[in-house]
Amino acid sequence: MDVPTLVEQARAGRPRAVARLISLVEGASPQLREVMAALAPLAGGAYVVGLTGSPGVGKSTSTSALVSAYRRRGKRVGVLAVDPSSPFSGGALLGDRVRMQEHSGDSGVYIRSMATRGHLGGLAWAAPQAIRVLDAAGCDVILVETVGVGQSEVEIADQADTSVVLLAPGMGDGIQAAKAGILEIGDVYVVNKADRDGADSTVRELNHMLGLGEAREPGDWRPPIVRTVASRGEGVDEVVEALEKHRAWMEERGALTARRRRRAAGEVETIALTALRQRIGDLHGDRRLDALAARITAGELDPYSAADELVRELTAQ
Amino acid sequence: MDVPTLVEQARAGRPRAVARLISLVEGASPQLREVMAALAPLAGGAYVVGLTGSPGVGKSTSTSALVSAYRRRGKRVGVLAVDPSSPFSGGALLGDRVRMQEHSGDSGVYIRSMATRGHLGGLAWAAPQAIRVLDAAGCDVILVETVGVGQSEVEIADQADTSVVLLAPGMGDGIQAAKAGILEIGDVYVVNKADRDGADSTVRELNHMLGLGEAREPGDWRPPIVRTVASRGEGVDEVVEALEKHRAWMEERGALTARRRRRAAGEVETIALTALRQRIGDLHGDRRLDALAARITAGELDPYSAADELVRELTAQ
Repeated sequence: MDVPTLVEQARAGRPRAVARLISLVEGASPQLREVMAALAPLAGGAYVVGLTGSPGVGKSTSTSALVSAYRRRGKRVGVLAVDPSSPFSGGALLGDRVRMQEHSGDSGVYIRSMATRGHLGGLAWAAPQAIRVLDAAGCDVILVETVGVGQSEVEIADQADTSVVLLAPGMGDGIQAAKAGILEIGDVYVVNKADRDGADSTVRELNHMLGLGEAREPGDWRPPIVRTVASRGEGVDEVVEALEKHRAWMEERGALTARRRRRAAGEVETIALTALRQRIGDLHGDRRLDALAARITAGELDPYSAADELVRELTAQ
Repeated sequence: MDVPTLVEQARAGRPRAVARLISLVEGASPQLREVMAALAPLAGGAYVVGLTGSPGVGKSTSTSALVSAYRRRGKRVGVLAVDPSSPFSGGALLGDRVRMQEHSGDSGVYIRSMATRGHLGGLAWAAPQAIRVLDAAGCDVILVETVGVGQSEVEIADQADTSVVLLAPGMGDGIQAAKAGILEIGDVYVVNKADRDGADSTVRELNHMLGLGEAREPGDWRPPIVRTVASRGEGVDEVVEALEKHRAWMEERGALTARRRRRAAGEVETIALTALRQRIGDLHGDRRLDALAARITAGELDPYSAADELVRELTAQ
């Protein structure tokens, strides 16, 4: 099937066409550029929500509950479940097949897993392409769910219009969260499993830690903390409200456009650098880099001088 | 003090000179290139050991115990404690000032913390420079300790001649380890706190999981599992033995040189890409990228075409 037909069918909500398009962009296929060019004028309508948190906080359950909440509002929803640590394609570790089953018969929901480990350029490269496909295919909301492991969650926050950080009571999240820097990326915080012991102290600790940040200017966004029991759907409407408030707050200030431009700039930069990296590899079939490396390990050359040589050759091509 | 004098003093084991050189290379100072060029012929003598593991397995204690073991053997030891998640310079979260105090009066030990979050180019960029300084300064062994958070530990493994993965009983390390992929990076595994309940089952589980990998060729390295109680120094000599065995195994096969060349190649590539990224930023004072991003968010351009334009401009300079 050719690209224009695929795009047309994806717009009509045909999941197989969406799946095929994502595979084309994900795998850096020869049609990648054609697909991206075809999608460009169609994208931009979706609101991208990032969800992150440590294993065990109930991310898949929360994502599923959010899907239901948006579906009740008549929105088309895309879900991208990203596992930055898994080398398995298809995202076996993530819950698409298990927790998301309740949405499997719903044509207004498209769910995709993505394993980014080992991907050329990693998460920063692969996720935006898939988001763009879901966006162009007509999703109103795209939920990007990722396992919170260090850098990856920051990268996901970069992809999202609004970032949700999930926590749960009694997981020692406080210190972990601080270390992983997720307290800097959340626009909305959700304490899930709020019926469990320790929920109050998690909320309190979180409040305390968020308050420790720099003093806020009047009009600055103060990230709300929402309590949920996602497995029973409790508090999920409040999460949607918080997301909509954040969106409105950003739109009022032109911050949404700014954030999306910054995202696009990062995306372009990543693609350009990936292409340049490819060119470095292509220089004399990788042997150029190997030869420089051999001279470095022999103590004849330092890595900066070697890099200078490489850049000179690359930009003089 | 000029660079040649600093290098001379660092070679003579003066810690302040070492500190100053690391600061120069870490901060991308104007003298960076001069320093790296001066160090090139002096480096290559140190053996680089990476130590990684989840918080709580006893990394700092193990590192400290290894330092003692190497000191007993008359080796000069450098320690680089890397915290990829901390934005604080000086590595406040890592144990240099607390756990490593016993070595503070020893001129044969140099300890440095490094916080890489927010660093230009991150860990892959900053750590090799510091390692090179310690190497050129005459360290026989360099221990690179990092908190195991996803990608960072893989990057540290890339920097090391031999990678040690630390685990401890009863931390649910099994599944976490599998997810983070650390079972692929260890040359030596250490189960610390081996006097605790559950040590046997941790060793068993680890054995099982390591055995699940691809079938090994005859002569392939089979990562040993060493039990330690680092706080009492128990098992630490066995760790040193395992490290020396791995080193000998690699040297026999020319694998050490190959690994170091691969490392140098990656280092050059990273520096070159950082330089290219800098150039992208310099294109018309960043406005070029911003303008492309604005056209993308307006749906007028796709990111691949934008990246193509950028690469064209960059390589035609």
